[in-house]
Amino acid sequence: MPMFHASVAEMKKLLQGLSRWLEKAEANAKERGYDPNGLASARLAPDQYPLPRQVQAACDAAKFAAARGAGKDAPSHPDTEQTIEQLKTRIQKAVDYLDTFSAKDFDGAETRRVALPFLEGKDMAASDYLVEMATPNFYFHLMTAYAILRHNGVPLGKIDYIGSLTTRDKPPAAQDK
Amino acid sequence: MPMFHASVAEMKKLLQGLSRWLEKAEANAKERGYDPNGLASARLAPDQYPLPRQVQAACDAAKFAAARGAGKDAPSHPDTEQTIEQLKTRIQKAVDYLDTFSAKDFDGAETRRVALPFLEGKDMAASDYLVEMATPNFYFHLMTAYAILRHNGVPLGKIDYIGSLTTRDKPPAAQDK
Repeated sequence: MPMFHASVAEMKKLLQGLSRWLEKAEANAKERGYDPNGLASARLAPDQYPLPRQVQAACDAAKFAAARGAGKDAPSHPDTEQTIEQLKTRIQKAVDYLDTFSAKDFDGAETRRVALPFLEGKDMAASDYLVEMATPNFYFHLMTAYAILRHNGVPLGKIDYIGSLTTRDKPPAAQDK
Repeated sequence: MPMFHASVAEMKKLLQGLSRWLEKAEANAKERGYDPNGLASARLAPDQYPLPRQVQAACDAAKFAAARGAGKDAPSHPDTEQTIEQLKTRIQKAVDYLDTFSAKDFDGAETRRVALPFLEGKDMAASDYLVEMATPNFYFHLMTAYAILRHNGVPLGKIDYIGSLTTRDKPPAAQDK
């Protein structure tokens, strides 16, 4: 299932972007003269997870998407990170794990069933799981991390988020239009 | 390309969720005694689009994802909305447009090329466009709208976001595990 692998590859790319956002946050903190780990308690609402937990959840969302889509058991990555440096290491751990997957691992994902801890007696087709659960859940935490950084004055924009695109030269006929 | 249609269907579901978030915002404003249209200028950073533009951009991201994936021209939806009520109407317009697509419209999306205004002389395979551009761009604006509402005290949580899931009863063998 090529779309499954492409989605996991996109999550990897976005996690690498998240790591760069944290580097920008560190650089911005230095420039503004504050301890970047002050961001570790930042959140947008008092009943929302703070930044570290958002980063950890984005990492786990990508990890579980890949593992479940391939019918494997995901490794445990305990949520112990407290500093920006430690969060970057956690992201790298998730990226390294995603790197162990190839397109072939997702062969048969159309018919694979995914069991989720909160779905008693039910499961999901892996393709439904990817589109309805894994992807939105990943973006939920990734973008909440982005919003927390943005709200705290870290200079980020859409280009830091979208990153590089797989483009192709237009064929000559299309160029003429 | 069933995954393309599934992704468009998910965007539709999430836009309907966004409309419900706005309804919750209206109810919360009533309860707290403020004009819900005060939210129309809310943003998380001074150099960020405010809530209406985020909603409009999420609607357009979904509209263009469907149109480009199917090789059609998207209708123009001018960004004129200023009130919560008008934003809900705008969302409904996007939902109605997404409803005009069926899975068949995305047949051949694997080989379809998508031209983007900012890609001079280049284009993208529709499948790359979906995963690398349309989907992250949609979630960017949807989740920024969520974050703005959340930051302003609207009572929202993950369940308001993920919505219903396509589950299936586990087969008896899996139940025994």
